[in-house]
Amino acid sequence: MVIIMIDNLIVAKTLSGFKDRLPKECAAKASILDVVSNVFLSYGFMPIETPHLEYAQTLVRQGSDEIQKELYRFRDHGNRDVALRFDLTVPLARFIVQHRHELDMPFKRYAIGNVFRGERAQKGRYREFTQCDFDFIGSNSLSCDAEILQVIYSSLTALNLQEFSIWINHRQILNGIFQHFGLQDNIESGLRIIDKLDKIGIDNVSLELQRELNISSNVAQDICNIISIKQNNHYEEFFKEVSYLKDYNDSLKIGLESLESVLHILSDLEFDISVCRVSFSIARGLGYYTGIVYETTLNRLKNLGSVCSGGRYDNLTQSFSSERLSGVGASIGIDRLIVGMLELGLLDERSTMARVLVISLHMDYLPFAHKVAEVLRQSNIRAEVYPDVTKIKKSLSYANNKGHEFSLIIGEEEFKTMTVTVKNMTSGMQRENISLLNTLQMIKQA
Amino acid sequence: MVIIMIDNLIVAKTLSGFKDRLPKECAAKASILDVVSNVFLSYGFMPIETPHLEYAQTLVRQGSDEIQKELYRFRDHGNRDVALRFDLTVPLARFIVQHRHELDMPFKRYAIGNVFRGERAQKGRYREFTQCDFDFIGSNSLSCDAEILQVIYSSLTALNLQEFSIWINHRQILNGIFQHFGLQDNIESGLRIIDKLDKIGIDNVSLELQRELNISSNVAQDICNIISIKQNNHYEEFFKEVSYLKDYNDSLKIGLESLESVLHILSDLEFDISVCRVSFSIARGLGYYTGIVYETTLNRLKNLGSVCSGGRYDNLTQSFSSERLSGVGASIGIDRLIVGMLELGLLDERSTMARVLVISLHMDYLPFAHKVAEVLRQSNIRAEVYPDVTKIKKSLSYANNKGHEFSLIIGEEEFKTMTVTVKNMTSGMQRENISLLNTLQMIKQA
Repeated sequence: MVIIMIDNLIVAKTLSGFKDRLPKECAAKASILDVVSNVFLSYGFMPIETPHLEYAQTLVRQGSDEIQKELYRFRDHGNRDVALRFDLTVPLARFIVQHRHELDMPFKRYAIGNVFRGERAQKGRYREFTQCDFDFIGSNSLSCDAEILQVIYSSLTALNLQEFSIWINHRQILNGIFQHFGLQDNIESGLRIIDKLDKIGIDNVSLELQRELNISSNVAQDICNIISIKQNNHYEEFFKEVSYLKDYNDSLKIGLESLESVLHILSDLEFDISVCRVSFSIARGLGYYTGIVYETTLNRLKNLGSVCSGGRYDNLTQSFSSERLSGVGASIGIDRLIVGMLELGLLDERSTMARVLVISLHMDYLPFAHKVAEVLRQSNIRAEVYPDVTKIKKSLSYANNKGHEFSLIIGEEEFKTMTVTVKNMTSGMQRENISLLNTLQMIKQA
Repeated sequence: MVIIMIDNLIVAKTLSGFKDRLPKECAAKASILDVVSNVFLSYGFMPIETPHLEYAQTLVRQGSDEIQKELYRFRDHGNRDVALRFDLTVPLARFIVQHRHELDMPFKRYAIGNVFRGERAQKGRYREFTQCDFDFIGSNSLSCDAEILQVIYSSLTALNLQEFSIWINHRQILNGIFQHFGLQDNIESGLRIIDKLDKIGIDNVSLELQRELNISSNVAQDICNIISIKQNNHYEEFFKEVSYLKDYNDSLKIGLESLESVLHILSDLEFDISVCRVSFSIARGLGYYTGIVYETTLNRLKNLGSVCSGGRYDNLTQSFSSERLSGVGASIGIDRLIVGMLELGLLDERSTMARVLVISLHMDYLPFAHKVAEVLRQSNIRAEVYPDVTKIKKSLSYANNKGHEFSLIIGEEEFKTMTVTVKNMTSGMQRENISLLNTLQMIKQA
C-alpha cells in the first residue's frame, strides 16, 4: 500500500480495518460506558488499566493459533519483541501475578479498552475494537457465577434494553454429553463444531460431528438431540425434566447442579429469572472455559449475535504462576451493542449535547453572549456560544445541523436591555427581548 | 531483552516505560475524566475517537525530528508502514480532512486517549500516557481563545483545585520582541531557548541567546528583561503599563491587543480573572503555535510543571488539505494532574467504591446476602457480597483492606429473622439483628 500524495499533500485516510468515531457515535459510546461502569462500581468491581503494548511472549502463550497470526507484533526501539494486546484477559492474568501482593482476593475488576487483531477486513468487523470486561478472580464460589449474571442483567436493564435473553450452559454438561457417548478424547473438536451451530445449523453440526469424530449418524443425532434442549419454562421445572441426565455421569451431575444453584441464588432478587435460560448448545469456542458459560442476545435482533458473553475459567494465571487462581467474568461487546441500540432507537444520535446556541450579532456583544451561556450552564443547561459574527442564517443553520433546541440571539436592542431573542429550533417560534430569568424558565420547562 | 522463564513460567512483567494502573489510581483517573468530560460537554465540545494505529506517513510529516525517532513504527500484516500515534492533534488533523463533509464548522471536539513515545525511560515519564485534548477548529475569533481559558478554569475548579495560575502569552508578542532586536530570522531558535527558562534560569537563557543568536550581552539582557515581565495587577492596568511595546512593531501590537481582548471577553464572567496572568516568557516549544499560548500551574506545587497547556495554531490541516483551518485548544496532562491532586490530598484513594460488604456465614444464606446487597443498591448505596463462606476474620479483614465503611453479617439468627448484624468498620461498633429498613437508614445517615 502506497500513500497517494496530491500536490504534496498526504491523503487523509484511516488504515484499512480501522475507523474513527464521529461525535454522535462517540457520545453514544461514552454514555453506554458511563452507565455500565456505574453498574460495575455498584457491585464493588473496580477499574484497572494495563498497557496497550506487552512483551509478545506474555500474549502468545495463551492465545490460540489464529490469534497468534493476527497479532500486531514487532521489534521496539530496544529490539524487544512486543505486541499490541488482542484481548483484556491475558493482560489481566499478567497483571494479577505481577501485583499479587498488592491485591486482595477475591479481586473484582473491570477494564474498558481497545484491542487489536489483524483479521481479514469484513463489513462490521474492525481490527481495533473496544472490549468491556468484568471479572471476579480468586473464588470458586457459585455466588460469583450468579453475580456475573446479575451484573449482565443490571447493565442491560440500566441501558433500557428490555427484551433480551441470557443463555447459560456449563462446560461440565458438554463434557458429560461427550463422555456419555465415549467421546471424552474428542471434547475439544466437538465443542468447536457445536460452537458453529448458529452459523451452520443443526443438520450440518450433525454431519460434521460424524465426519470429524468418526461416529455414526445415530450417535451424532443423539448428541444433537441433547444439545438442542433449551429451557422454556421455570428453571425448577426444567431441572426436573432433565434430571435423568445426572445419572449419565458425574460431569453432567456437577454441571446441572451448578447451574441450578446459580439460578437459585438469583431467584429471590429483583431479577426477571425468565430472562435467564439454559441452552445446552452454548459452547463458547475459547478453550479456557471450564464451568458456567454465558451468551446474551437481544430478542428483537436475533442476527446481531451475542452482546455479552463469558464464563468461568479454572486457571487464569497458569502461564505466569504456579498459584491456581480461578475466575469468572463476562465481556460486553460495546461495538455490537452500539449497532443494536441504534437499530432499536435506544441511543440519542446527537451531534452536540449542548441544548442552546447563543448567537451574537456584533463583536461587542460577545462578552454578553458568554455571560448568557454561563448563566445557563450554572443552571445545568449545556450551552454553546457561536464564536463568529456572521450572517444570522449561517449561525442558525449551524444550530439546525447540530441539533440545538434553542438559539438565543443578541442584537443591539437585546444587548442594551440585557435580554435575548429566543428561537425554538424545533417549532421555529421566536420571541423577542426576553429577560434571562424568563429565558431560563422557558428552557428548563421545555 | 530476554524473557526470563522459571519452571516454564513466563515472568509477569510490563514493558520498561509502561505501567499498569491499579484500582485506586484508575478510579481516581476515571473520576477526573468524568468531571472534565462533563465540563467539555457543557460548553458544546463533543468527543471523537481515532485509532491508536495510523499510516506512519500521516504522523511523521507533522512531528518534530525528536518525535520521529520516538515513534513506534513497524510493518503490519499487509506490509503497510504503520505507527502508534504520539499525540491526539495530528490524528485530529487527519480526521478533520477525512470527514470534512460530515462536520460543521466551527468544530468543537474533545478526545481522551493514550499516546506512545519511545522516550528514554525516566522517573515519572512513561512511554504510553494519557492525553485529554479539547479544541475549537475552523474559527479565527478571539471568542474561542477566551472560551478555551474558561474551559481550563471551569475544569480545574470543578476538580476542586483552588489555587492555580493560567499563564498566557502570544506568539506575536515573542515574534515582535525578536523583530525589535533585528532577530526575525532567529525566532525559532530564540523560542526554543526561552522555553527552557524554568529548567535553566534566566542567566543561562541570556548566555544561550548570546551564543546561539550571536548577539551581545546587552541585547541578550534587554530581551531577558522583556520576557521576564509578568502581570501581577489587574489586566487593564497591566496593558497600560506595557502599552509602550505596541509602538515597537505590528507583531507586538497585535499580540498585546489580542490578549487584552481575550481578557475583556472574560472579565464579566464568574471567572476569577486574577487567576489568568500574562507572562512574556511562555513560549511552548512546539513549532505549530501562532497565536495565544497557555500554561497552567498549581500554586502549591510549583515544581510539577504545567498541568494544562495549549494555544492557537494557524493551519492545522496543512499536510492534508489546501483548505486553511485554524484552531485553538489545550490539553490536560492527566497523569501529571493525578500526581498533583494526590499530593494535595484532593483524590479519594480507595480500593473499592462499594461502601458495604455483605458477609454470609453459611452457603444457605448467600441468596439472602445478595438480596440485602440489592436492597442497598436500589437506594444507590454501592454494596458488595463476599462470595465465599470463610472465617469471619478473613472476610472482615478483606473489608478493612478494601475500605468498606460497613460490614453486614448474616448468621443463623439474622437469616431466620431477615435481619443483619451491622459492623461499622471505622469505629468497630457492632449492632445485632437490625432490620433492613433500619440498616438502610443507618448507612444513609453515616
